[in-house]
Amino acid sequence: MAVYTEVGDEALREFLSAYAIGELIAFRGIAEGVENSNYAIKTSTGDFVLTLYEKRVDPAELPWFLGLMEHLAARGIACPLPVAARDGQALRQLAGRPAAICTFLAGVWPRRVRPEHCAPLGAALAGLHLAGADFQATRRNGLGPEAWGPLLDRCRPGGDAVQLGLLAELTAAHDAIRAAWPAAGRLPVGQIHADLFPDNVFFLEDAARRPRVSGLIDFYFACTDLLAYDIAVCLNAWCFEADGAFNVTRAKAMLSGYQTLRPLQPEERAALPLLCRGAALRFLLTRLYDWMATPPGALVTRKDPLEYVRKLRFFSSCEGPGSLGL
Amino acid sequence: MAVYTEVGDEALREFLSAYAIGELIAFRGIAEGVENSNYAIKTSTGDFVLTLYEKRVDPAELPWFLGLMEHLAARGIACPLPVAARDGQALRQLAGRPAAICTFLAGVWPRRVRPEHCAPLGAALAGLHLAGADFQATRRNGLGPEAWGPLLDRCRPGGDAVQLGLLAELTAAHDAIRAAWPAAGRLPVGQIHADLFPDNVFFLEDAARRPRVSGLIDFYFACTDLLAYDIAVCLNAWCFEADGAFNVTRAKAMLSGYQTLRPLQPEERAALPLLCRGAALRFLLTRLYDWMATPPGALVTRKDPLEYVRKLRFFSSCEGPGSLGL
Repeated sequence: MAVYTEVGDEALREFLSAYAIGELIAFRGIAEGVENSNYAIKTSTGDFVLTLYEKRVDPAELPWFLGLMEHLAARGIACPLPVAARDGQALRQLAGRPAAICTFLAGVWPRRVRPEHCAPLGAALAGLHLAGADFQATRRNGLGPEAWGPLLDRCRPGGDAVQLGLLAELTAAHDAIRAAWPAAGRLPVGQIHADLFPDNVFFLEDAARRPRVSGLIDFYFACTDLLAYDIAVCLNAWCFEADGAFNVTRAKAMLSGYQTLRPLQPEERAALPLLCRGAALRFLLTRLYDWMATPPGALVTRKDPLEYVRKLRFFSSCEGPGSLGL
Repeated sequence: MAVYTEVGDEALREFLSAYAIGELIAFRGIAEGVENSNYAIKTSTGDFVLTLYEKRVDPAELPWFLGLMEHLAARGIACPLPVAARDGQALRQLAGRPAAICTFLAGVWPRRVRPEHCAPLGAALAGLHLAGADFQATRRNGLGPEAWGPLLDRCRPGGDAVQLGLLAELTAAHDAIRAAWPAAGRLPVGQIHADLFPDNVFFLEDAARRPRVSGLIDFYFACTDLLAYDIAVCLNAWCFEADGAFNVTRAKAMLSGYQTLRPLQPEERAALPLLCRGAALRFLLTRLYDWMATPPGALVTRKDPLEYVRKLRFFSSCEGPGSLGL
């Protein structure tokens, strides 16, 4: 469910009248997405996506997100391009929310990841990192290492009800990960997506079913952080089977695809298992918090936090980057 | 939320390979709709809507619904046209569900009904009734008068918890409406939509903001019943203000629009207040039942049944068709 805010007829007409994108032909809510309200817009000039930014997005940060997307799109990255209205502004107001229209991206996100998706995914991620290198403005990672301790504390009342002993395990993992986390300046930093899950990557396939990346979407967790941490997020998000087993074939394909464009430095390779533990902890903590805060059967589908307990344990047991396919 | 069934990549590819509709370009869930799962599909030849029929739709009735839409579309009604696959079949299976692809319809459903919508709406409804006249197969109205008593009985445990005294009021209304309901053969019968709410009617506007109907969708309550009952449904669905007041301007526009194509018979005019009471009771009962059966905060948004108590009372207080704008 991704329509939280309804848009009135007059409000929509007035909003669209600020743009030079043609006559409105259709306007339908998009089911995908969790954080914001998204509508598919068709006009006489093409397809667009209207996003109304809901409460989890800080309006003050929207210019950074939209600026990053403009920057990346200008460098050939297949990401949504914010469409400026006639007055030059892309970020506007609609139905009491900050809102923007972006270009429509072709493609389908993979419901079942195949190894064939992973090499193009890795290359697309490296391309994003390279294209972001000259985007000067920075954004702190609001869900980075400094946020994990406070998040863990907010999970203490009730966390053990989700799984007995969970809090002790997470506290130990958190302390170990934080103690070992790379000091500032030790690993390359840049603009990262930080949430590149399969539903944020569109693919098109050729006649031989070879997938190529046709779109990267949902940049609203993007930030300035360790580039290799973005790889760690993808290893968490793309390289496990439904039964919890790590799929090293996918990991190898993803890492090879990445390194065709941006070879990892030795320090990044060495740090990768640790970064993967950190990424597992990050998604575990936000899922655990959402799980506890969301009543069963609520409008938003809850994601199982225990999936990430298993991933955290896997990465904690890794003997080195070789276990990840490097 | 209108994606209940997820469609896997291989299943989608195999499903689409049965059609000659071009190469897949995009596949996104549609947020609108309550009963079924709907996906917007874009291919190299155009836009389509894929519907997976969920549990409320009886698969045995789908050929009737799809046949009616084909019949109406062939007669120029702007309704979804089921797309036949290469083998000539439009009704297929996908992800364990009956499924069909239909043509995409342009337009936007009105979030706020204006009187200007109502004349084209009425004309579109009459056009649908006329176009359906030579569709021979019939379908009983599963939510017609015979269904109201059993529905009311299923609401008895708990109905008064929604509003004190509600069951006594509904029982009295039901008995009075059933006793007065037109005997078979007294009023013209034909194919009716039976659920033509604003979110099932798309409009496009010209430069002067004059709306014209560009699409009628969601025929899965359609049936063979009193034509004037369809008008009664629309009077319930389109002609009340948000504060519960009946808007006779909209009603007059709708009825005039209808009669430009199909003038009502004197018996239909006389019966209209009663039919409106019946339609109010029908939506009241299904909403009340869903309200009681759906836990608060569930995935499906519950619709307030008490809105229809107020409409039922209004129509019960009508002195004649003149009160409805006839």
